[in-house]
Amino acid sequence: MLVGDKNYQSIWPDESDPAVIRVIDQQKLPFFFETRELRSVDDVFLAIRDMTVRGAPLIGAAGAYGIYLATLEITPLTNIDQHLSNAARYLISCRPTAVNLSWAVNFVVDRLRQCAGPEELSSAALKAAGEICELEKENCRQIGIHGLKLIEKISRKKKGKPVNILTHCNAGWLACIDYGTVTSPIYLARDKGIAVHVWVDETRPLNQGARLTTWELGAYGVPFTLITDNTGGYLMQRSLVDIVIVGCDRATRTGDVANKAGTYLKALAAYDNKIPFYSAVPSTSIDFNITDGLSEIPVEARDPEEVRTVTGFDGKQILSVRICPENAPASNYAFDITPAKFITGFITEKGICRAAEKDIKKMFSDKFN
Amino acid sequence: MLVGDKNYQSIWPDESDPAVIRVIDQQKLPFFFETRELRSVDDVFLAIRDMTVRGAPLIGAAGAYGIYLATLEITPLTNIDQHLSNAARYLISCRPTAVNLSWAVNFVVDRLRQCAGPEELSSAALKAAGEICELEKENCRQIGIHGLKLIEKISRKKKGKPVNILTHCNAGWLACIDYGTVTSPIYLARDKGIAVHVWVDETRPLNQGARLTTWELGAYGVPFTLITDNTGGYLMQRSLVDIVIVGCDRATRTGDVANKAGTYLKALAAYDNKIPFYSAVPSTSIDFNITDGLSEIPVEARDPEEVRTVTGFDGKQILSVRICPENAPASNYAFDITPAKFITGFITEKGICRAAEKDIKKMFSDKFN
Repeated sequence: MLVGDKNYQSIWPDESDPAVIRVIDQQKLPFFFETRELRSVDDVFLAIRDMTVRGAPLIGAAGAYGIYLATLEITPLTNIDQHLSNAARYLISCRPTAVNLSWAVNFVVDRLRQCAGPEELSSAALKAAGEICELEKENCRQIGIHGLKLIEKISRKKKGKPVNILTHCNAGWLACIDYGTVTSPIYLARDKGIAVHVWVDETRPLNQGARLTTWELGAYGVPFTLITDNTGGYLMQRSLVDIVIVGCDRATRTGDVANKAGTYLKALAAYDNKIPFYSAVPSTSIDFNITDGLSEIPVEARDPEEVRTVTGFDGKQILSVRICPENAPASNYAFDITPAKFITGFITEKGICRAAEKDIKKMFSDKFN
Repeated sequence: MLVGDKNYQSIWPDESDPAVIRVIDQQKLPFFFETRELRSVDDVFLAIRDMTVRGAPLIGAAGAYGIYLATLEITPLTNIDQHLSNAARYLISCRPTAVNLSWAVNFVVDRLRQCAGPEELSSAALKAAGEICELEKENCRQIGIHGLKLIEKISRKKKGKPVNILTHCNAGWLACIDYGTVTSPIYLARDKGIAVHVWVDETRPLNQGARLTTWELGAYGVPFTLITDNTGGYLMQRSLVDIVIVGCDRATRTGDVANKAGTYLKALAAYDNKIPFYSAVPSTSIDFNITDGLSEIPVEARDPEEVRTVTGFDGKQILSVRICPENAPASNYAFDITPAKFITGFITEKGICRAAEKDIKKMFSDKFN
């Protein structure tokens, strides 16, 4: 996507230095636009851990490039199998909820097993990571095409009045290499001149909605309004939301969705107010092995300090302020599980389907065992 | 309640200066404990508007003392009726949602109509405002006694393991002159040695939970954990909440409750997970004239700047940081409406009743017309 007049992805191999993978520093947005160099597996681990890179598809891609960087660390004395599985295990351990991370890391490691000799590993890893990026971009592009139909339908029903879309967190291009999952249909609608307006949940504790989604939508010229995470229910009660579209960190084969904490609350409100609630789900975010989100998806508990503090901009610099008594006990579950019964449907790269095993199976029969 | 070794209410007439009403400055907590002087109707208006004093019962009491301060402005040339009704209208206009404000202001003005002469007005107003404070304190005390039974019952069922209570915003003694509505049963439980633990929603945008409820509970020795507003749903999914108790800014005679934005989302989650959801409602917060919360309770829209920024402490001073792009459009509805069907019951000063017209009428038959 364009930033100023230059086209960006959220991750890419540096053109001038083959030892560098470059990412947009998402901790600094929207206050500063900076990129960051990743030169080692550790750099990748820390960038994912500290949310410099975040979003299910992007952390998958970052993990894949992490394996590429691991291949650069190989010397004639390295036990390659052990080195690569250590790197894979380490990278996968970084964040437990999104399935994309383990899927992408394993995809690259499996590919490397097919290499004839150690001299092929780096180029094979780079190629495999690039393929993942292209796959996720294409997934997002297709999700856009399918999701657009939902927006167009509402727009027709409203006789061209703005379609009010509520979203939580950031499932935009920053989270997904390019286009985004949730944002892709919105950008297409904007391109086609369909009037849309997005209610953006700030998404505490790290405010990915307030910082990133607003920045993306503003740059693309999509009208939006920032709200606290508490507000969406009232907006739905007042018929000010036409559709909710959220991302997905991991879906079960039965249609449950793990996504940023607070998603479930919005799904309940949408259900109560008969508002369609969709999750934009590339198949790379579906865990085809599991059937029950609540018992089978590990929910990451992050540093309570993220809850005790808020990071923002004072006009000069980015800084954190404490919002509670010093050392107040705090708890920081980063995700929740939205049961399939509250989800109207999935917007996937293959089309829209109900959030139900039968329908998911029909769409992705090759992935079911 | 004790602050250090001194007993406080959240509002009181200054002992040494009859021209002064004194309040705890709730904007400064938990970082600084300071009191603030109110010397005029304008001072009261601004203190309510800027949230120095907040909470339905307290803004009622502050409005009542505002009429007292208005009586001090009377000179021999004043048109007393006009002066008092102007003051009343002005004070009531300050915040539209809580019914306590108009009720308390009108209570004092009505009392003044019974005065024999202008020389009686100030002492009558001071007395009436004091009565309101005593009434609200006694309401809270009784709510504590009735609400305690709910906690005791859960405690017995859990064989003495901590009762996990989730609350939103601050319906503590700071909001209610003394004891609090939601906190009163919790403090009594603590006094009786019943193990309790409170999940405290931070309550964006102004973080009354993070700033005030944590401070109150900590001072009383009640174990608590601060969470973002997004987290409660997941905690309920994981059976980590035994009961939800929230305050009330205005209830209808039919059992709908207007309370801080986000309350409705927690009610939906409690309902979905079969967790009891109670609102602590003194009868002064029931609007016996209305039957439909969503269409009849005005929901205050506050300054969007509260959404764009977060106020906290940097170790030296209180300051605000911006969490989004400069001038991002934002919307700030301060309340939402929880329909009666999602509310297990009201904890009132007369006992516990279902959130239904028949049951509310049985309990408060004298107030029904």
